[in-house]
Amino acid sequence: MQLIETIAGLREVLAEARRQGLKVGLVPTMGYLHEGHASLITRAKEECDVVVVSVFVNPLQFGPHEDLDRYPRDLERDAQLATKSGAAILFHPSAQEMYPSQVLTTVSVQQVTDRLCGASRPGHFDGVATVVLKLLNIVLPDRVYFGLKDYQQVRVISRMVSDLNVPVQIVPCPTIREPDGLAKSSRNVYLTAQDRQAALVLSNSLRELQKLVSAGERNAALLQSRLTEWISSEPLARIDYVEILDSEKLEPVSCETAEIVAAVAVYFGQTRLIDNAVIDAEGRPFYAADSNEIKNSSRQGNRS
Amino acid sequence: MQLIETIAGLREVLAEARRQGLKVGLVPTMGYLHEGHASLITRAKEECDVVVVSVFVNPLQFGPHEDLDRYPRDLERDAQLATKSGAAILFHPSAQEMYPSQVLTTVSVQQVTDRLCGASRPGHFDGVATVVLKLLNIVLPDRVYFGLKDYQQVRVISRMVSDLNVPVQIVPCPTIREPDGLAKSSRNVYLTAQDRQAALVLSNSLRELQKLVSAGERNAALLQSRLTEWISSEPLARIDYVEILDSEKLEPVSCETAEIVAAVAVYFGQTRLIDNAVIDAEGRPFYAADSNEIKNSSRQGNRS
Repeated sequence: MQLIETIAGLREVLAEARRQGLKVGLVPTMGYLHEGHASLITRAKEECDVVVVSVFVNPLQFGPHEDLDRYPRDLERDAQLATKSGAAILFHPSAQEMYPSQVLTTVSVQQVTDRLCGASRPGHFDGVATVVLKLLNIVLPDRVYFGLKDYQQVRVISRMVSDLNVPVQIVPCPTIREPDGLAKSSRNVYLTAQDRQAALVLSNSLRELQKLVSAGERNAALLQSRLTEWISSEPLARIDYVEILDSEKLEPVSCETAEIVAAVAVYFGQTRLIDNAVIDAEGRPFYAADSNEIKNSSRQGNRS
Repeated sequence: MQLIETIAGLREVLAEARRQGLKVGLVPTMGYLHEGHASLITRAKEECDVVVVSVFVNPLQFGPHEDLDRYPRDLERDAQLATKSGAAILFHPSAQEMYPSQVLTTVSVQQVTDRLCGASRPGHFDGVATVVLKLLNIVLPDRVYFGLKDYQQVRVISRMVSDLNVPVQIVPCPTIREPDGLAKSSRNVYLTAQDRQAALVLSNSLRELQKLVSAGERNAALLQSRLTEWISSEPLARIDYVEILDSEKLEPVSCETAEIVAAVAVYFGQTRLIDNAVIDAEGRPFYAADSNEIKNSSRQGNRS
């Protein structure tokens, strides 16, 4: 595997790959890779000839009081995991390389950013959309892979790609969990043993919610209050948000047949974790193991 | 020449061209083509194998009380002129094709849009940046051609391309003028004979200004007041703005050695015309006939 730190260097290598007619897949990450990332890389390697993993802790998507400085980093371990999973290139640019001068251009996606992390973390998704668009323009991948743990992020990027005719196919991939249910996250490393145990309330409550919907309950207000109740029953949990929304528009559910997403952000100590469950009208998990494409997803261009 | 109205149709034709290793040039226009556009197409044809001219009156860049509905259109004449100038493809999408659903994604460029048309036409450059980025993503050209009559537009697009790592080379081309000096514009067709004559005050005053700078005058405030005075002396001219700015940042001139742009927007009747002159520290026109690349232009990616 090649470690590349400059945009020019990466472009040169990829131009040669494209001249050979090879298909390029991109897995954008902030590093400190875990099995969730590994699953994206593995999937990308199944579908593409050349897999680029980018590792860049993007300052633009962190708020002033967030964890930019203490965000965990371990490039050597990242390189090992990326290699093992099938990546050909690890792209690891400096902030100076990505933002050589003041960033005057902002990409904003409205509506799908009104709630959830969009509301809790002002400016966060502008930062995400901008850096992802930069990475897409640098790598020009055929396919780009995102984990569905960051459900709203997938929605934001999908909408950006569709609105701006970006010629890439987005591949959303299922959340990978610890054996006990905790969603894999680079931030799990922050958790104390006690918080780690308490955090199980998220996946457990989401599983209970799914059962409730399967049993026929479709009243969003009721679902939301039950979910809130369950999570609040854990004394170490401090809720940032608990919402039941239309899974595509990320707006309040307007009809009983809509697919819904139950999305939560909860602090355990100083650590903010997110998780979600997408559930269709019959109460089935929306992302079945054999089909993790977003249904009704917006028109996407294909790089030709 | 091929007339293509769908994004998918255009992508298909261009994918084939790229497979053959052909270089693609894009000339984005709002149609009602004149010799200014022709010069861009001719230049593109000199430098690229396949020239795409897009004709799209972009609703997103017009304000609520602007001339979107009466903007002049003549596709047949456009097709003739584009063919004669060397275009291989005229891309003429409908508004529905370009904006199939509500546009939730906005591309904004700060700072260089604070003044001039950015101040006079709120939201205008968001609309320009967004549609140009869409066209770049649809066509994936090696080079894209813009006329320097829309000086601020060139600055906005250059900054967007640089900030977002869009892999295209921007080629700014000199303003084309009528024999008497009036800058070519699709909007000139709106002018009454009397206004047409009065509008010469713009190019005449800009030429006088250039002489003044050549003679050693570098005081921006004084230059601005002389230029305003000269234009105001024309009774049919109603000034929107007259400004002397740093030619790169489009901010007030901070030192005497900066290249400056004198930019004006003036109404004649209901018709708003713009014109500009870029002048370097020695009073030389900044864009000499033999070199119309923007000096000190921001780093630009190259599609590889």
